[in-house]
Amino acid sequence: MSAGARAKPHASSKAAVLDAIRAAGTISRVGLATATGFTGPTISALVRRLIEEGLVVETGRAESTGGKRRILLQLNHTARYAVGVHLDHGAMTYVLTDLAGTVVARIVRRGAGAEEPDTVVSRTAEEISRLIESIGVQRGRVLGVGLVSPGPRSSAPGVGLAPPTMRHWEGFPLGEALERATGLPVVLDNDATAAALGEHWSGGFGGATSAAVVHLGTGIGAGLVINGITYRGPNGNAGEFGHICVDMDGPECWCGARGCAEVMAGTAAVVTAVQADAALAEAVGLGTRRRRVSTVADFAAISRAASRGEPGALALLERSARYIAAAARSLANIMDLEVLVLTGPGFAIAGSVYLPVVQQELQRTAFSRAAQPVDVRLSRSAATASAVGAAALVLESELVPLSQAARLPERLDAEPVALPYSLVASEVD
Amino acid sequence: MSAGARAKPHASSKAAVLDAIRAAGTISRVGLATATGFTGPTISALVRRLIEEGLVVETGRAESTGGKRRILLQLNHTARYAVGVHLDHGAMTYVLTDLAGTVVARIVRRGAGAEEPDTVVSRTAEEISRLIESIGVQRGRVLGVGLVSPGPRSSAPGVGLAPPTMRHWEGFPLGEALERATGLPVVLDNDATAAALGEHWSGGFGGATSAAVVHLGTGIGAGLVINGITYRGPNGNAGEFGHICVDMDGPECWCGARGCAEVMAGTAAVVTAVQADAALAEAVGLGTRRRRVSTVADFAAISRAASRGEPGALALLERSARYIAAAARSLANIMDLEVLVLTGPGFAIAGSVYLPVVQQELQRTAFSRAAQPVDVRLSRSAATASAVGAAALVLESELVPLSQAARLPERLDAEPVALPYSLVASEVD
Repeated sequence: MSAGARAKPHASSKAAVLDAIRAAGTISRVGLATATGFTGPTISALVRRLIEEGLVVETGRAESTGGKRRILLQLNHTARYAVGVHLDHGAMTYVLTDLAGTVVARIVRRGAGAEEPDTVVSRTAEEISRLIESIGVQRGRVLGVGLVSPGPRSSAPGVGLAPPTMRHWEGFPLGEALERATGLPVVLDNDATAAALGEHWSGGFGGATSAAVVHLGTGIGAGLVINGITYRGPNGNAGEFGHICVDMDGPECWCGARGCAEVMAGTAAVVTAVQADAALAEAVGLGTRRRRVSTVADFAAISRAASRGEPGALALLERSARYIAAAARSLANIMDLEVLVLTGPGFAIAGSVYLPVVQQELQRTAFSRAAQPVDVRLSRSAATASAVGAAALVLESELVPLSQAARLPERLDAEPVALPYSLVASEVD
Repeated sequence: MSAGARAKPHASSKAAVLDAIRAAGTISRVGLATATGFTGPTISALVRRLIEEGLVVETGRAESTGGKRRILLQLNHTARYAVGVHLDHGAMTYVLTDLAGTVVARIVRRGAGAEEPDTVVSRTAEEISRLIESIGVQRGRVLGVGLVSPGPRSSAPGVGLAPPTMRHWEGFPLGEALERATGLPVVLDNDATAAALGEHWSGGFGGATSAAVVHLGTGIGAGLVINGITYRGPNGNAGEFGHICVDMDGPECWCGARGCAEVMAGTAAVVTAVQADAALAEAVGLGTRRRRVSTVADFAAISRAASRGEPGALALLERSARYIAAAARSLANIMDLEVLVLTGPGFAIAGSVYLPVVQQELQRTAFSRAAQPVDVRLSRSAATASAVGAAALVLESELVPLSQAARLPERLDAEPVALPYSLVASEVD
């Protein structure tokens, strides 16, 4: 797969069958025909290939329903792995998932900050190698790397606006550079869209037909999922939640418009408001003598101060939450949302302040409330959602099959590998 | 079809083939197989049935490309008709379209106002009969009636919020009542969604994959079209443009939220602002002695005053346009819009004020502007878009085939009917 290409869900019949097996856990060939709409002979042929490639295994028989007991199939979870990377200003988050999307290793390293793209790519390649080696997975089994970051990501020019922290990345051929540095296929996407995909894979949307995540990090973005498919829009700019207008005459945003949710209520807006009040800045530990780490780290300091009872810090967070809630209402009323999940480091840090404000606003004012209230939740993996989604991008794409070099076990038990969920290290805060 | 049921686009393979023929104008069987993805034998069988039912005719041969010259197919336009009704407070708009969606007759009557639903249904049935008879179409060829109105429409309870002008319709079994009164199948929908469908059918979106209409009437709504399919949302409440928040601390809207686009900028908001200024109200002809007709009629008076140079009227329209533009920006940034069409009576009246304001705002601030500017246009049929879309709902649904009673000509030329575009009458303004 060339760098910058988008993952195409269900682009091949094989990928569709794999996805149906993943979603079901265990399933018979007859069940697969029903789930995918393919004919019996097509399913038989596809399953034969998937078993030959070691991606799927037979795992016993279903209970008899009168006729022949059907053989059940399941993914060979350890047959393939995917790397997910969330590149952000304040932190680089890496996960390794198995073929089912389960996280088997995770590391967090310092963010990209103002570093040169080339330097970041070299470091990222090293950190990916260390992640893979940390739990003894053969590199040949790694399908590829999903890398996600704020703003639209692509090697194509003119795709959209780069947020301020990513300006020096504009025009940099990120996908190609990372493919060269890692020797692995690379797929790029927006971090909010990836977070939505990750939430979808982990079942966080339930069976909702219209769902979204709002991702609060250095910026604010949303990822939209309609009928189980991520909606990116024709230019990959769908879900620009941070640029929903909440005040027509508000201050100018970096995007050129006025009163955007991000300029009124993003983590940077909260940090700036605290810094504008010297006494408050001192009280929350953001005085002039403190070394600046990242916006998200400063936001975390404000949130800690709020939870230990600092009223100025709490008031600013609540004000931010009211703007986020107003923008969430616009999103809900446009998409007719059933589920809204708050995710990303900002909500991982201060979700207890934001969640009730957004919940109450949508309960009270969402247009669909009479038919069906919007279910507003915090993500169960708010801090790593984008990285998990980045790995899911790889699994969802057509990277299968691998190069012939990769030898794969025929059976689940052929190579027992211990796969604990391991937080290997963290350099952030 | 039961009343209140939603039209399912392409719900049957026959409907899919009909739609592909409609979209192409003329097309061969081989072309149909490519366009629909069906196999050659499936296409042959479906086309045979469509010809037997008189819906499709063979119309000559394509130019030779070396092999056998292929027979071309086209719709038998006059084989079926559909009625579209836009029920609104200020006007009832009726259209009759042929099988291709072309309007062959149109009438406008006084609006539903505060009349009792039963009375409106009786009148509507009579007006539909007169419309059909006015150009001599056999009633047996009319597939059904699409009726659209502001707010979510369904006979199911608890579907959403009824706008103030429709409150006395809540719980009224509109679909069933109109089916009984007309003897025709009835399909209901929201007027903004119907306007989007009408725009899509008439080619107003070009080939855009992400398009919307904003419909300015008594209220404000949007209809969304993604990849050629209208997106209604799980509760039929998608595209509630009037309830996008443009001022978090603004006045309360009838929906219960604050600072909605509709309460800040809708036709009623403009009329109320004029009425609050006695001198201005007198100057635009909305003085206290004038008989109130409808909000849209009052809005038309304000617009006429603005165009003859009344500065107060123009300023209020421009203020409204700025709010609509801010909400349009939120919509564009969420959906990654390629095309936005302004439609409905409000824009039919005052489009020359609104269009440049919305165009400039999106040109200057839409997030995707670097990749692709949003194409903002006025609808070519802004006054009747919803009624045309209502008829398209019928054509799009699975109402085909008709009762066996309807006798249909086998050939296009078997029954020459004059089908002028006829504005039969108007009682409004």
